[in-house]
Amino acid sequence: MTHYKHWQTLYINVNLATMTDGSHSYGEIRQAALAISAGKIVWLGKQSDLPASLSSPSFDLLFDNLEVIDGKGQWLTPGLIDCHTHLVYGGNRANEFEMRLQGKSYEEIASAGGGIVSTVSATRKASEQELLASALPRLTALHQQGVTTIEIKSGYGLDTINEIKMLKVAGLLAKELPVTIKRTFLGAHALPTEYKDDAEGYLDVVCNEMLPQVVSEKLADAVDVFCEGIGFSLEQTQRVFEAAQAHNLPVKVHAEQLSNLGGSALAASYGALSSDHIEFLDETGIKAMKKSGMTAVLLPGAFYFLRETQIPPIALLRKHKVPMAVATDANPGTSPIHNIHLMLNMACTLFKLTPCEALAGITCYGAKALRLNDSKGQLAVGYDADIALWNIEQPAELCYQFGVNPLTSLYQAGKKVI
Amino acid sequence: MTHYKHWQTLYINVNLATMTDGSHSYGEIRQAALAISAGKIVWLGKQSDLPASLSSPSFDLLFDNLEVIDGKGQWLTPGLIDCHTHLVYGGNRANEFEMRLQGKSYEEIASAGGGIVSTVSATRKASEQELLASALPRLTALHQQGVTTIEIKSGYGLDTINEIKMLKVAGLLAKELPVTIKRTFLGAHALPTEYKDDAEGYLDVVCNEMLPQVVSEKLADAVDVFCEGIGFSLEQTQRVFEAAQAHNLPVKVHAEQLSNLGGSALAASYGALSSDHIEFLDETGIKAMKKSGMTAVLLPGAFYFLRETQIPPIALLRKHKVPMAVATDANPGTSPIHNIHLMLNMACTLFKLTPCEALAGITCYGAKALRLNDSKGQLAVGYDADIALWNIEQPAELCYQFGVNPLTSLYQAGKKVI
Ligand SMILES: [Zn+2]
Ligand SMILES: [Zn+2]
Repeated sequence: MTHYKHWQTLYINVNLATMTDGSHSYGEIRQAALAISAGKIVWLGKQSDLPASLSSPSFDLLFDNLEVIDGKGQWLTPGLIDCHTHLVYGGNRANEFEMRLQGKSYEEIASAGGGIVSTVSATRKASEQELLASALPRLTALHQQGVTTIEIKSGYGLDTINEIKMLKVAGLLAKELPVTIKRTFLGAHALPTEYKDDAEGYLDVVCNEMLPQVVSEKLADAVDVFCEGIGFSLEQTQRVFEAAQAHNLPVKVHAEQLSNLGGSALAASYGALSSDHIEFLDETGIKAMKKSGMTAVLLPGAFYFLRETQIPPIALLRKHKVPMAVATDANPGTSPIHNIHLMLNMACTLFKLTPCEALAGITCYGAKALRLNDSKGQLAVGYDADIALWNIEQPAELCYQFGVNPLTSLYQAGKKVI
Repeated sequence: MTHYKHWQTLYINVNLATMTDGSHSYGEIRQAALAISAGKIVWLGKQSDLPASLSSPSFDLLFDNLEVIDGKGQWLTPGLIDCHTHLVYGGNRANEFEMRLQGKSYEEIASAGGGIVSTVSATRKASEQELLASALPRLTALHQQGVTTIEIKSGYGLDTINEIKMLKVAGLLAKELPVTIKRTFLGAHALPTEYKDDAEGYLDVVCNEMLPQVVSEKLADAVDVFCEGIGFSLEQTQRVFEAAQAHNLPVKVHAEQLSNLGGSALAASYGALSSDHIEFLDETGIKAMKKSGMTAVLLPGAFYFLRETQIPPIALLRKHKVPMAVATDANPGTSPIHNIHLMLNMACTLFKLTPCEALAGITCYGAKALRLNDSKGQLAVGYDADIALWNIEQPAELCYQFGVNPLTSLYQAGKKVI
């Protein structure tokens, strides 16, 4: 019986949304308990199935120094996962936002320095410390909402030194806050003005200069491309994928946001992690994604902010059982929104996901989009003890209401961080 | 020179969005200072116009015990005003929200107790203490966003004892948090099941029983009616307005949300404070509102949550210079959203208001909708020192970005409350 001696923390009197069966019924266990040891979940189940009853004399014999916490009927979920963000950037685009609403012309806005160019320019100008200082409140907000894992992309440097700088800053954030950070190299986000008529020349730099350095300094876990009419073509995307593959880095793609270029199917042929946005994705693309085990990442914040009308093909994604993740896409141009609870609400309100699908999108399927599904995104024995405690009566409340943050406690790797 | 001796607090090195000229240019004063005394704003202007330079020897002679605060280039705005909420209610509607997204039929949802009936039932069951406890986190969230004044309606009791209870709870909230609360009697919100085939019978109770008691106990500052096909007809609305007028209470109206019944024009003929929702308002109604000095209250949260497509007639409201307020409409059925910053973003993103119009909507025109425009909603000498300090570089950031709360300090009636 000594194998319980190592239990460190035991939550009793909680309900669990384990999210172990994906988007069905929350993997719900009511009147449950959950035990943590050495950063992992070591036991969970009905409280009545604990190895000893709390009130029995043998309870104290079984455990050493066990901290027992009464959850008072609240709900535990996995720590939240935001699997698609551009959290590190310089400046902001409030000025452009205001000019557009004032009815200023495209030319006026451009000549005032609007668009991604302005973010690239501000990001290049900012020091590592300045970028860190501006990203920190954004990550803090997400952390206080229950986020324990986040992906952060480069893509506003668009030259070697500044892409590297962005990825380093993303890494430094993990020293400031107890959040697991996965980094994605998105050199192929847009063409910098220096290369505006020479996409191939820019991709030479991306593939032959930036990527090797990113790899040698171990600055990224994946490679992303913005595959779109206003971004990179299918062929150009493929070129970046080939380079990533040569370096053994998994790929992912921004695709089918504004048109159906077939970026998702291309990504599938490279065993990509995910295709993201996908408002215009068709059934062929969905089948390809299913076949290669990809995750569909839905970004309702950008859909909302851009006032898009084409909703992602949710019914087909359901039909083909493609896992759907949900993320903030936090970025200064098209989703300046640093709130993952709002994404739960928008996934339901705008995309008609069920609350369970939405929650799966920022837990188990968020983890899958980052290839962390063996260690994060579920409450299961052996998984990282990234756990959020919520003052709610049912999980759907996390999606339905907005504004009052119901997070009462947060653990990352078994350590209480809120 | 002794008349400066009473200055208590002086903000220096701030920028002011005074909001004194409505929806134009924020009434902006840069490199400004603002002085508070006895709960009021007693001076504001360019810092260089202060009666004595901070560095001059005469400064200390001029003031006694003056607290000087360096705003470090941040922005001061009036404390925010949420002029339309249903913040006090029992239960929540997460279950119904989930059932709808799961594709359950109207009958299934109704038989599981969905709709306003469920909120009425939960509100009636709840004690004053329970209603207070459930409303408090909602008001706390708004307060932490910078709200210093809020309107709260009754309307989920739908019988005398419970309408009175709701208004009492709304009053008690002001003892819990430093927020000015204006109460509105909305007995004519919906028909209770007891009167489902007898609207006139119910309005007898509203006008002859509830209203006199509300007035004699001084529980409301205004009377509201839900004038809509699914609510009360024009004639029924008029009946309630007549009763309110007889008791010298100002009226307001939920109107033109789902159809154009002419509720706004009717309200105008009673000198109403505001018409709220108004997606279907026409130019005739707008002219009537303008003539009688009414405010148009825009509720983008309900528009969003209901996935409405008819946008309020913003261009016509601008043309006729009808002041536009913006509010949360916080309520469990159609806008379970307790965040006024999100309303700023939604007013711009969904309704295309300029950031300045949106901010005016929750400051000077929010105040106007509550007939508080002589004391609140502007930074002006003689006005209440309800003041919010924001860590932003320009006011448009309050509307553009969302998720990081930039509030760094809040004063209500000259007292620092955050
Ligand atoms: Zn993105
Ligand atoms: Zn309302």
